[in-house]
Amino acid sequence: MIAEILCVGTELLMGQVLNTNGQFLARELAALGVNLYHQTVVGDNPERLEAAYREALSRAEVVITSGGLGPTQDDITKRVAAKVAGEPLVLRPEAEAMVRDWFARAGREMTPNNLGQAMFTPRTQILPNRNGTAPGAIVPVGEDQFIVHLPGPPRELEPLFREQVAPWLAARSGRVLESRYVRIFGLGESMVDTLLEDLEQQAEPTVSPYCSTGEVVLRVTAGGATRQEALGKIEPAVAEIRHRLGDKVYAVCDTAEGSLAHSAVAALKAKGLTVATAESLTGGLIAATLVNVPGASDAVRGGFVTYQSVAKTLLLGVPAEMIEQYNVVSAQVAEAMATGARERLGVDIAVSATGLAGPGGGTEAIPVGTVFLGLATAAGTKVIPLHLTGDRERIRTLSMKHAIHAVLRAAEGSPEQEGKQP
Amino acid sequence: MIAEILCVGTELLMGQVLNTNGQFLARELAALGVNLYHQTVVGDNPERLEAAYREALSRAEVVITSGGLGPTQDDITKRVAAKVAGEPLVLRPEAEAMVRDWFARAGREMTPNNLGQAMFTPRTQILPNRNGTAPGAIVPVGEDQFIVHLPGPPRELEPLFREQVAPWLAARSGRVLESRYVRIFGLGESMVDTLLEDLEQQAEPTVSPYCSTGEVVLRVTAGGATRQEALGKIEPAVAEIRHRLGDKVYAVCDTAEGSLAHSAVAALKAKGLTVATAESLTGGLIAATLVNVPGASDAVRGGFVTYQSVAKTLLLGVPAEMIEQYNVVSAQVAEAMATGARERLGVDIAVSATGLAGPGGGTEAIPVGTVFLGLATAAGTKVIPLHLTGDRERIRTLSMKHAIHAVLRAAEGSPEQEGKQP
Repeated sequence: MIAEILCVGTELLMGQVLNTNGQFLARELAALGVNLYHQTVVGDNPERLEAAYREALSRAEVVITSGGLGPTQDDITKRVAAKVAGEPLVLRPEAEAMVRDWFARAGREMTPNNLGQAMFTPRTQILPNRNGTAPGAIVPVGEDQFIVHLPGPPRELEPLFREQVAPWLAARSGRVLESRYVRIFGLGESMVDTLLEDLEQQAEPTVSPYCSTGEVVLRVTAGGATRQEALGKIEPAVAEIRHRLGDKVYAVCDTAEGSLAHSAVAALKAKGLTVATAESLTGGLIAATLVNVPGASDAVRGGFVTYQSVAKTLLLGVPAEMIEQYNVVSAQVAEAMATGARERLGVDIAVSATGLAGPGGGTEAIPVGTVFLGLATAAGTKVIPLHLTGDRERIRTLSMKHAIHAVLRAAEGSPEQEGKQP
Repeated sequence: MIAEILCVGTELLMGQVLNTNGQFLARELAALGVNLYHQTVVGDNPERLEAAYREALSRAEVVITSGGLGPTQDDITKRVAAKVAGEPLVLRPEAEAMVRDWFARAGREMTPNNLGQAMFTPRTQILPNRNGTAPGAIVPVGEDQFIVHLPGPPRELEPLFREQVAPWLAARSGRVLESRYVRIFGLGESMVDTLLEDLEQQAEPTVSPYCSTGEVVLRVTAGGATRQEALGKIEPAVAEIRHRLGDKVYAVCDTAEGSLAHSAVAALKAKGLTVATAESLTGGLIAATLVNVPGASDAVRGGFVTYQSVAKTLLLGVPAEMIEQYNVVSAQVAEAMATGARERLGVDIAVSATGLAGPGGGTEAIPVGTVFLGLATAAGTKVIPLHLTGDRERIRTLSMKHAIHAVLRAAEGSPEQEGKQP
């Protein structure tokens, strides 16, 4: 089955509203195994909307619209769809009852134009909307095509799609789609692409890379008559990726959610370990990213933001002479910061970061992007030197990710702590 | 002039990535007075992309693409555009130099497929990209149409558009455009809309609200034959907005860059003040956001992440009995945290945050979203209670912004510190 998404509204077209409905619908369609090749946004203009409907129906079996179901003159989505379907809009009593009922429950007065929200073509299947006045609709166009109307507000559209449209689509397609997400740290996108070129070109399972600063996530997707059949195509591909990328793969997940921080917090909790941070150039970003994982409080005790040198001495006991002698951006200071944080907070693992994020301050000896991480564990403190590139934000983000990766590795390599409680 | 936006990428089409570029480009085009009637998203499929180009060029003079400029097999945006333009892709030495230079500066090894990023049609105007490997491009199609290529990552696309494409579009339209950015904290979007409805509806200057969590930024834009003429239309509107919104306006800027943190750091530096943080639910986010401002090291001494209760006692001297008696989410603990941080780091201003970000843990007495900020200055420590709503991330982000706003107000209200140095 092929579907298209057609979002209607001048406020979307002009960028006054961010188009989150497009993303929501795209993800839901992918999960249903429905093919999606085009998403379009048009304004509240009848001629251009009609052309967009005809264009979409020349390519797809189902066209899903969002927006333009309201009571005003601007709300043209249904009217133009009826024209394209070649059928009149008529007042549908069951829809009128829904609209009247919504106003009664909301304790609000109904204006005559609200009755327009109960007008549909005679063959339309009406979809009750429990969060707003405008019902959704499945409008047949000829014998084997459909325009599906959904209201624009996400809190109306999302439950309406999940509860009524998704089951209707699944029943029509009869196919199951599965995905796995392979999470990679420490390899650039083009290196991943070079190593996996043949896999990325095959028809099924599809292997698609998604990149964020320093990270690549591969989505591996296949379809089948059953979940088992789809997974049977995915699993050998995931095994092959693991084989080729080795320990650069830090997690394989069932959902798109996940991150280095999720993996690190999970590894810490699995072993009963606690962690602390000592941050200079990252200024609290390592701790904040760990804490953003729900349930992090079992593992993340706290940390130190020691941005000025005096704070490193006051809070972590880094000797002023050491900073003077070796520079604040040095392996010695990173090591002293991590050791100090581990001792002061009594944790199993402490990670530190000191470095130069720029834009100013670089020298030949210590260029912008020079970063030292310290990793203190029961086995002692080691230092990880980094040579990062990019702007201030990128250098800080990469430093944070390397630090959390170091915590993940340390947690995975640690023996389980029995009976330890924060 | 009519333009269209064509976003390319299977990850966008399938909803893995939210299409913020479409919104950004739509707003920029509106501010430039360029007409926009269609936004389309297609995947990395050559046939469908070619059809989308031809469709867009049948309607518009300029087609602006985002994404698909990377080095991989999937990156087809330029190749298909060249086919549509009927001109070959050739290695352009000036682009090769940009790509090689980027890798040299990045200290990263270039793979052969990166040279693909330096291939353009002979007549293409190449746009340097200071934040990534892939240059942008303005590709002539015939005599009077153009395809503009922009890289997908917003941090590359946005400056490239503002600095190179907007002036090119403005030059084609023969107008100078100016904007001012009015930054607002503490008023919701719908309240701003209600207060400024008449201004937002006028033709020139345009007044467009941009919202992020807890903040509204109004862009005020006007055009003219000269910069002076444009500014002459903007200034009275900015004065009227200031008059209506009063002290909810915390800054008026010449550029889109800026934030509560930029304003707070600037205010601290102007007065020669130092600041420290003591963070529980925000977990380092307040400090990290302040530190993200270039030059923050003059003002931001450091801070404490005291996520577990034991860390509040160990690092800030919050008595365990106080936490026991009043709850860790209490005015008393917020006050003790801020006072402790100010004393321990010897700063002028310390801000603390303790609260419940959820999703779990709420009670009738302390529901999710209950937050207390502490603000310690030479005048003593005051507590700011907040009742926030939304998910974990929103509650943490709003807490951070309220804390930085409190620092900004405290710095603005403080006398200048003479001769103080960190």
